[in-house]
Amino acid sequence: MIPLEEARARILAGISPTPAETVALAAAWGRVLARPVMARLTQPPADVSAMDGYAVRAAEASAGARLAVIGEAPAGHPFAGRLGPGQAVRIFTGALVPPGADAILLQEDATALPGAVEVTETVTRGRWIRRQGLDFAAGEELLPSGRRLTARDIGLAAAANHPWLNVHRAPRIGILATGDEIALPGEPIPPGGIVSSNAHALGALVRAAGGDPLILPIAPDDTDAIAAAATAARACDMLVTTGGASVGDHDLVQAALGPQGFALDFWQIAMRPGKPLIWGRLGQVPLLGLPGNPVSALVCAVQFLLPALGRMQGQAASGPRTIRAVAGADLPANDRRYDHLRAQLAGGEAGLPVATPYPVQDSSMLKTLARAEALILRAPHAPALPAGAEVIVVPLGDLGI
Amino acid sequence: MIPLEEARARILAGISPTPAETVALAAAWGRVLARPVMARLTQPPADVSAMDGYAVRAAEASAGARLAVIGEAPAGHPFAGRLGPGQAVRIFTGALVPPGADAILLQEDATALPGAVEVTETVTRGRWIRRQGLDFAAGEELLPSGRRLTARDIGLAAAANHPWLNVHRAPRIGILATGDEIALPGEPIPPGGIVSSNAHALGALVRAAGGDPLILPIAPDDTDAIAAAATAARACDMLVTTGGASVGDHDLVQAALGPQGFALDFWQIAMRPGKPLIWGRLGQVPLLGLPGNPVSALVCAVQFLLPALGRMQGQAASGPRTIRAVAGADLPANDRRYDHLRAQLAGGEAGLPVATPYPVQDSSMLKTLARAEALILRAPHAPALPAGAEVIVVPLGDLGI
Repeated sequence: MIPLEEARARILAGISPTPAETVALAAAWGRVLARPVMARLTQPPADVSAMDGYAVRAAEASAGARLAVIGEAPAGHPFAGRLGPGQAVRIFTGALVPPGADAILLQEDATALPGAVEVTETVTRGRWIRRQGLDFAAGEELLPSGRRLTARDIGLAAAANHPWLNVHRAPRIGILATGDEIALPGEPIPPGGIVSSNAHALGALVRAAGGDPLILPIAPDDTDAIAAAATAARACDMLVTTGGASVGDHDLVQAALGPQGFALDFWQIAMRPGKPLIWGRLGQVPLLGLPGNPVSALVCAVQFLLPALGRMQGQAASGPRTIRAVAGADLPANDRRYDHLRAQLAGGEAGLPVATPYPVQDSSMLKTLARAEALILRAPHAPALPAGAEVIVVPLGDLGI
Repeated sequence: MIPLEEARARILAGISPTPAETVALAAAWGRVLARPVMARLTQPPADVSAMDGYAVRAAEASAGARLAVIGEAPAGHPFAGRLGPGQAVRIFTGALVPPGADAILLQEDATALPGAVEVTETVTRGRWIRRQGLDFAAGEELLPSGRRLTARDIGLAAAANHPWLNVHRAPRIGILATGDEIALPGEPIPPGGIVSSNAHALGALVRAAGGDPLILPIAPDDTDAIAAAATAARACDMLVTTGGASVGDHDLVQAALGPQGFALDFWQIAMRPGKPLIWGRLGQVPLLGLPGNPVSALVCAVQFLLPALGRMQGQAASGPRTIRAVAGADLPANDRRYDHLRAQLAGGEAGLPVATPYPVQDSSMLKTLARAEALILRAPHAPALPAGAEVIVVPLGDLGI
C-alpha cells in the first residue's frame, strides 16, 4: 500500500495537458486557456467622458459662468470639431472627449439654456474623464494560460476584441464499469445484483470538471469482455474502470488487460474508503482503476481523477481544493489509512465552518455521500481530536461534484 | 431610487419556475429537480457481505475451528443453498449472505484448506454484514425538488433505479445589447466606438447558472431597431437588455418598448455600480434592463439575474451566496447607494478570508472585475470600517461567474 500523496504525485506525473483547440468566444465559458489573451486594443481607446454632462475647459467653468453649447457627442458619435474659448459640448457617458476640453461638467451641476449652459458647480481639471488605457493597453496580457474562463473573463476577452480563443481540448475520459452483478437503471437486475451507479456518477464528475465522458457498455466479470471494452478506449485521453480491482478471486481487470499491453504502476493505496486502486498505462492511454464500491469510487475520483482532469486541461498539478474547518464532534485517532469522513458543513461563530461527520461512515452508503457537504481529511495515524479542533476538509458542493 | 433588496424582492416576486421536462439521467447533471427522487428499490436489497471472506455461523466460528466450505457466492451470483452446521460459504464483497449464515469471517482471519477453512480470529455475530436497507429503503425520498444535481446525486438516482429524471426546463434568456457605439469582437469598430462585451459575458453567466442564452443581434440606438429585436424575445422566459437605461438624451429602451406593450415596474436602484436598471414586463415576458457599462451590467446580473435564474429553476428566492470575510484595508463610510467593492480574497490567519478592495474602483474597469475574487457588499450609509473588521462578500469564483 502506498501513501495517498505519493499515489497522486505518480498519477499527475504520468499525465500531459491536451493540445489546444480554437473555439468561438461564445463557446469558451468554463474552458481552460491554452494561450494567454492579450489586449488587441487600448481601452478606453482615447479619453472619454465618465458621465452625462458637458465637455468644458475647467479654467472657464466656475460656478456662474455661462458657456456656448456648440454641439453634442453621444457615445459612438464623436464631436467633429474642437472646443474653443467660452464653449462647451453636450456629452454622454463613454463618448470621446472633444479636443480642447479638459473636464466634464456634470449635467446635475449645470442649467441648460437655449444654445448655452450655466455652470452651477465649479469644475476641476480632468474631472469625470476616463483616461485612454485606464482599463487596459494594447499588447497587455489580460488572461494567462491555464485560466478556467469565467463569465467575467469572457467579457474581458470580448472587450479586448477576441472572437476566438485557444483552449485545451476537453479531455475525453472512457468509463468502463465491470461486474456480473450490475445493471444500468431501468434494465433487468440480475438475481442478487444491484443497479450500477458508478459510470453515470463518474460521467457527471468528468463533465463537472470540464471533461468529455465516454460511457462504455458494462463489461461482465469475464476477461474477454473486459479486454474488448478496453480496446474501445484507445482513442481516449484516459480510461477509468470501476470494479475488479480488489484482492478477491473475482478481480479480473488486471488479468484481462495484461494481454492488451497494460503496464501496472501500482494498485493499492493506504486510504479509506478505496484501498484497491489501479494506476498504469494501457499502451499510450493512462488507466485509472477505481474500486467498484460507489462511495469508494467517488472519493477516489475526488482525490485522483479531479486533479488528473485539471492537469489534462493545463492547470497546476495539485490535490482537490481544501478549506479549513472545525470538527463538529470528537474524532477518534486514525489508523494507517488516509481517511475521508463524510460530513455536514455549517456556518461557525468563530469564522471557520463546522464540519460534523455523519455517525455511520459505512462505505456502502451512497445516500450519506450525496448529502455530505464535505470530506474531513484524516492523515494516517492522525491523533484523536476533540470537537472544536481545526481540520482540513474538501468542500463537495463546489463545482457540482 | 429604490433600495437594492426591495428591487430584488420585486423581481423575484414577478418570476415563476419553468415547467418540468424529462431528461435522461446521463444529461441531468447540473439541472434542478422538478420532482423529488424516490427510491424504487431497497439498497442493499438483502443482507450482503461487506468484505471478502467466508459466510459462517458466528457461534461455530471461534479461533481454531475448522468449517467445510460448501460453495461460493461472488457478487451477483448468490449461493443457491442453505448453510448447515459446521459449514461455510466462500463470499465476496457485495454478495448476498446465504440463508443460515449470520456473520462474515474475513479472509485475512482464515486459512484456506482443501475443501475447508480454519478460523484464525474469532467472529462475532453480525460482523461484516451490511443489513438490507442500510443505504435506503424503497419509497424513501432521496433527493428533494429544487435540488441542483451533483455528480453524487446522479449516482444516488442511478442506484435508486431512475433512468430518467424530471427537472425544470433550462430558462431561455434573450439578451439584447443596444448602442450605436458597440461592435461584436472581430467586426469593424465604429469611430469612437468600443467592442461589445456585455452580451457574451451575460450569456456565459446565464450558462453558468443553468440557463440557455439566446443572443440577439445588437440593436443600434433607434426605437424601431430595438422594438424589432424585442419581438424576437417573445418566446423567452426573460429578456435582458443592456444599455439605453440611463437618464441621458439617448436612452431609448423605454421609449422603444412602450408601443410593444412594455409595462415598467421601476427603473432606478440605489446601488453602485449600476444605478439605471429597468424592471418590467413586455407582454408576458419579464424584462430586466441592465446598464450598458460592462462592470455595472455584471454586478447587477450577480444581484438580480442570478437569483432570477435560480428562481426560474425552482430554487428558493434569495440573493447571491455570500460569505463572511475581514476587510484587508480601511473602508470609507458609504453614501446612500449600496456599493460593491471589487476585491481580492486571501486566506486569513484567524479563519475568515481577507477581502482587500482594489485601490481604483472605477466602474469602467473590466480587467479589475475579471481579476476580482469577491465583491465586498457595503450597505447604504454603512459606517467607515478599519482593516480587520468583518464584512460580507459575494465570492465570484464560485460557479464560474
